[in-house]
Amino acid sequence: MDTMMAIIRRYQHHRVTLVEAGATRHQSIFNGLKALAGDHPHAKLPTPTIVIIHDAVRPFVEEDVLVRVVTAAKDHGAAGAIRPLVSTVISPNADGCLDQSLDRSKHRASEMPQAFLFDVIYRAYCQCSDYDMEFGTECLHLALKYCHTKAQLVEGPPDLWKVTYRRDLYAMESIIKDKISQQICVVTDTREDARCIGLLQKELEVKGTSVTLCPNGQDLQKIFLGECYNFVCINTMSADFHQTMKLLDGLGSRAPSLFYPAAVVSMHFLDSQNVSFGERMKALMKMKDFAKEVKNQNIFLYGVLIYFTQDNLQQLQESVRQGANIIASLIKDRSAGLTGQLLIA
Amino acid sequence: MDTMMAIIRRYQHHRVTLVEAGATRHQSIFNGLKALAGDHPHAKLPTPTIVIIHDAVRPFVEEDVLVRVVTAAKDHGAAGAIRPLVSTVISPNADGCLDQSLDRSKHRASEMPQAFLFDVIYRAYCQCSDYDMEFGTECLHLALKYCHTKAQLVEGPPDLWKVTYRRDLYAMESIIKDKISQQICVVTDTREDARCIGLLQKELEVKGTSVTLCPNGQDLQKIFLGECYNFVCINTMSADFHQTMKLLDGLGSRAPSLFYPAAVVSMHFLDSQNVSFGERMKALMKMKDFAKEVKNQNIFLYGVLIYFTQDNLQQLQESVRQGANIIASLIKDRSAGLTGQLLIA
Repeated sequence: MDTMMAIIRRYQHHRVTLVEAGATRHQSIFNGLKALAGDHPHAKLPTPTIVIIHDAVRPFVEEDVLVRVVTAAKDHGAAGAIRPLVSTVISPNADGCLDQSLDRSKHRASEMPQAFLFDVIYRAYCQCSDYDMEFGTECLHLALKYCHTKAQLVEGPPDLWKVTYRRDLYAMESIIKDKISQQICVVTDTREDARCIGLLQKELEVKGTSVTLCPNGQDLQKIFLGECYNFVCINTMSADFHQTMKLLDGLGSRAPSLFYPAAVVSMHFLDSQNVSFGERMKALMKMKDFAKEVKNQNIFLYGVLIYFTQDNLQQLQESVRQGANIIASLIKDRSAGLTGQLLIA
Repeated sequence: MDTMMAIIRRYQHHRVTLVEAGATRHQSIFNGLKALAGDHPHAKLPTPTIVIIHDAVRPFVEEDVLVRVVTAAKDHGAAGAIRPLVSTVISPNADGCLDQSLDRSKHRASEMPQAFLFDVIYRAYCQCSDYDMEFGTECLHLALKYCHTKAQLVEGPPDLWKVTYRRDLYAMESIIKDKISQQICVVTDTREDARCIGLLQKELEVKGTSVTLCPNGQDLQKIFLGECYNFVCINTMSADFHQTMKLLDGLGSRAPSLFYPAAVVSMHFLDSQNVSFGERMKALMKMKDFAKEVKNQNIFLYGVLIYFTQDNLQQLQESVRQGANIIASLIKDRSAGLTGQLLIA
């Protein structure tokens, strides 16, 4: 309960009430329903017309499927998401040998979310046998058995699957990384590198990310609210961290409540004729200290150096292209171990 | 057929015969069985006692489960791997409403591999109806229906799952990366940094990888044969690439036939008092050129620089610790976009 309360506070949820779980799936759900029926020790909750039941182990539930099960439940009393079967289902006999093989095309996997008229599902749980309460797995079955309500079955998207095995955690992580890598905000405060910015934008967009330009840090507040998780900060030739620092300040206050770590790439253009490579590198090594500081705030900071020779436009373009490649890798991998590193394009 | 032939040649498989697929799963399997019954246009294949049927979309099949299904098939005529159901299975009626919900504890998902007495499965396919041939999905069902053979069901490991959705590709990639990141070979040709090597080994082992030391490149041939995918090359203070080049030469000839890209980390110790940081950095930037060359050979080359001050043992140890962190990240992510980068610990 304490852990859940801490999560609710951290992410500032205002409409969540916790109910203690039971020993089995059905007991836990029944506890939730009883709280909605007016039986909660601390909270006075209004009884809803429709109730949605979902598994926390199905993290990718979209609004669309919620709307569809709720609409279907209004008409039919109960509704649930289904998916085609991936493997054939069989039943073994007592010796562990094949007894029967089901026709795959006539069966479906029952998934979540499911929605019910509150009265239907509450009545079903109130009449539920001890055996059902202990060994049952299917709410739609209870609505059918105890209230004769035939649930409408709604085709759900594949991402509704149940995170069960280690491989599902891997898949979940990759889906999240994919999702939060789709959008990059490029912050710049200078006009002189307009041609590079244009090329960088084009190269990043070729890789399938959408790029928002944010000159002089304008509109940053709006982008913060839009839940962008990736920022590229272009710093001027003098290679200080001015722009990056400004962004980190802005992000810092809200980053801890972000669901995922934000990636900030500090990008530096270094003219090989104007500055000593070694000197500049040493200055940029400060990156590691910055990175350490902001990691505590859920921000991963990386550096990218574009090393070029004035008047060699082709070389500059090639460097920017490589820079875009590196940025795409950093954002995709979002590696905690490589924060503070300065990568060279 | 050409693509498959190229794969067989590339990975030097000697006991694989290709058979043309049919339009459905069962037609393809039947074609394979007919070839084993002596009906192959080009190859004269001996007819086996037992045949194993497997899906290529289940890439993680271990010898253990193969042995178990074969043994069970010898006794029962047929055997197949099963897994517990993750979701409840239901059957819809004609209106798309719930008709029946199956008891999850009484059913199983039928997976692959499956094994059969050749006579049983071949006879089953020879009698198979057109309907079964077109719409059927289960070989165990055919053995039961046409030869009255009740297959023995064998509990399989979770990694037998069927790669079906995009998320399954993500999971597969992560499982492979995990698997090939378990073992690191550390190659060194110097005795002076023995204390660092010891610490590096310890830090890497803490992260769960097993470390094989390979002083002066001894036993490298044995390690190549053992399918190690990760190498850390310690280069001496003078910071040339001698050891790394030697390893890359040795790897180069066999890396193209590796299933996955090998990760080589070129590790350089740099004494801040003896050499100019800027000079040395420039020399090390050659890394990018080397990396580009060997990438074509299926080798990902990264650089790690340990920057320290002579006589400051504590700083050196901290750097080595950070270096181990960076190496672990590089090997885990195996990013193509970051090859040729020099990371600083």
